[in-house]
Amino acid sequence: MEVAQVLHMNGGMGNTSYANNSLLQQKVISMTKPITEEVISNLYSSMSPRTLAMADLGCSSGPNTLVLVSQLMEVVHNLWRKLGHDQSPEYQVFLSDLPGNDFNTIFMSVPSFLKKMSLQLGPASGPCFLSGVPGSFYGRLFPANSLHLVHSSYSLHWLSQVPEGLGSNNKGNIYMASTSPPGVLCAYYEQFQRDFSIFLKCRAEELVGGGRMVLTILGRRSEDPSSKECCYIWELLATALNDMVSEGLIDEEKLDSFNIPKYTPSPSEVESEVVKDGSFCIDRLEVSEINWNAYDSESFSSSDAFSDGGYNVAKCMRAVAEPLLVTHFGDAIIEEVFCRYKEILSDRISKEKTQFTNVTIALTKRG
Amino acid sequence: MEVAQVLHMNGGMGNTSYANNSLLQQKVISMTKPITEEVISNLYSSMSPRTLAMADLGCSSGPNTLVLVSQLMEVVHNLWRKLGHDQSPEYQVFLSDLPGNDFNTIFMSVPSFLKKMSLQLGPASGPCFLSGVPGSFYGRLFPANSLHLVHSSYSLHWLSQVPEGLGSNNKGNIYMASTSPPGVLCAYYEQFQRDFSIFLKCRAEELVGGGRMVLTILGRRSEDPSSKECCYIWELLATALNDMVSEGLIDEEKLDSFNIPKYTPSPSEVESEVVKDGSFCIDRLEVSEINWNAYDSESFSSSDAFSDGGYNVAKCMRAVAEPLLVTHFGDAIIEEVFCRYKEILSDRISKEKTQFTNVTIALTKRG
Repeated sequence: MEVAQVLHMNGGMGNTSYANNSLLQQKVISMTKPITEEVISNLYSSMSPRTLAMADLGCSSGPNTLVLVSQLMEVVHNLWRKLGHDQSPEYQVFLSDLPGNDFNTIFMSVPSFLKKMSLQLGPASGPCFLSGVPGSFYGRLFPANSLHLVHSSYSLHWLSQVPEGLGSNNKGNIYMASTSPPGVLCAYYEQFQRDFSIFLKCRAEELVGGGRMVLTILGRRSEDPSSKECCYIWELLATALNDMVSEGLIDEEKLDSFNIPKYTPSPSEVESEVVKDGSFCIDRLEVSEINWNAYDSESFSSSDAFSDGGYNVAKCMRAVAEPLLVTHFGDAIIEEVFCRYKEILSDRISKEKTQFTNVTIALTKRG
Repeated sequence: MEVAQVLHMNGGMGNTSYANNSLLQQKVISMTKPITEEVISNLYSSMSPRTLAMADLGCSSGPNTLVLVSQLMEVVHNLWRKLGHDQSPEYQVFLSDLPGNDFNTIFMSVPSFLKKMSLQLGPASGPCFLSGVPGSFYGRLFPANSLHLVHSSYSLHWLSQVPEGLGSNNKGNIYMASTSPPGVLCAYYEQFQRDFSIFLKCRAEELVGGGRMVLTILGRRSEDPSSKECCYIWELLATALNDMVSEGLIDEEKLDSFNIPKYTPSPSEVESEVVKDGSFCIDRLEVSEINWNAYDSESFSSSDAFSDGGYNVAKCMRAVAEPLLVTHFGDAIIEEVFCRYKEILSDRISKEKTQFTNVTIALTKRG
């Protein structure tokens, strides 16, 4: 079943979006800000379109949804003043996510956001026209040659579906793991290749020549797809689920057929698909790390912070994993799963440095 | 206070949109279908754009929201085949309404709608990209020169605000009425002129040269702004409210300061604003009638239908008037108001022919 459909089925549970953990998102947006600003700046300097059209794919619905829009307007506005162009450009911003995303909440905040930006940038700044676009980015979302900039943060590691043919081959695991057989790792990689190549093909059609793209994906530095840096957090969730199997709370076969529809690529795997596609030049390809516990990016000092850490990370992972778990296992086990997961996470965070790895790539569409 | 804000304040009550009475809407869309199809047909024949961009202003959220999109795709698809053009155009459709409109519900229905259209028109039909645009049409909503077609049905009779300076001058009435003093009628007309001229100015900026617009507005045939055809339905609501004032259920001063932010123009008033603006040619200007009770467009035969009629019309008017009434009077009186209104409507419908008057205008943006 498609990921979009799984998320649909849980639409009643709250926000269903590619990306839905706001503090982590906020830190990532802030970490990648210099790259995004550089891209926007280069884009406007080289093209200066009368209307600058941008799409944010996997925009979610929360405090970060409009942060990128303000970045765009600020950078372009300052550059426009510096360049002394005649009229400030107009902005057309498409916020896109799965149809189950809470667009109503975004839309209710639009008038005050626009008012704030207008006060901040003054009357000379061009108007910003915001719209919401429901749909999966593994398909066309926009007309041909209609966008100057595509942005996506923390969404593209979601696959369009669980790789087919896994069956019970990934027994005891729920994602790629050190004990996953090679066939499982291969099926995951092939699904990533299919999905990411479709993504690139669609965006190449939608972007104008010279248009830019900035993508940040959860990934890994290592070439080993079962590397701890990307798989450990899911292995700990598998531990909680396996414990519940051994206590008879979850059916073993049910667990064996559950797999997370996600892929955390290495920089070279991302690069390889871009090269194969051929429509884009790579301007930047960077890797960064961020702590699992977004509240604790500085130090490992107090034991209080450790116990909160487990709670914070479990909560963040719950936002991501709950729709998938509920669809597969039903909702009766959910509280117990996350209670156990929190304990396991607290223990791990107190004993080792636990981080997500981000792969950020900036691309230019060939003319 | 702006109408958009009033509707915002009642966002919790359900759908808040310019247009929210679905059966009546459906009949109006069906009545104006020949004009809309002619406009689409002329537009595509004369321009054949690679991407056809259309906006529906006051799209609401219900069974009619996507009807216009299917009309557009069907007409263009058939014409494209007839003309033997190379590639079918892509469609970019902007569904716009106030930020309080329920866009989530529209968006959830988009995947199945697109699937249905794709099955109906076949693989040769160009893709349709739908997006939602929150905002008031009494301001810019889209980039300059970005639209080929603007459509609006049963929304533009809503003013941006209650005319200023009415005070208690419209005592005993809640809308323009035969007993309204000339100053009140004048203030309403001036508000309409201000609002409609802003609407035309904004759309003229957004439409490409040769772009089209089809607007259907609740209006009147008569040049008398307090004509029964447009004011009677509100006079009957005023009767219910006045009865409650005389029984001490509503404060008299409260009623005196309540006025509906709406204007039902005559064809010549609409025409006059278009001529003053100067950006558009008028292709068609037509007037039609539709029964208050949309379930009873054919006959006045059974007495059952009469009593249902009061219920149907009261329900339809409640969808429109409730947010305005609640904002002004609070929600304690609402059930009683609409119970009385229903009785009054049932009586009137049984004794006379009660109809709304629609003004439809088709325009072409000068090149």
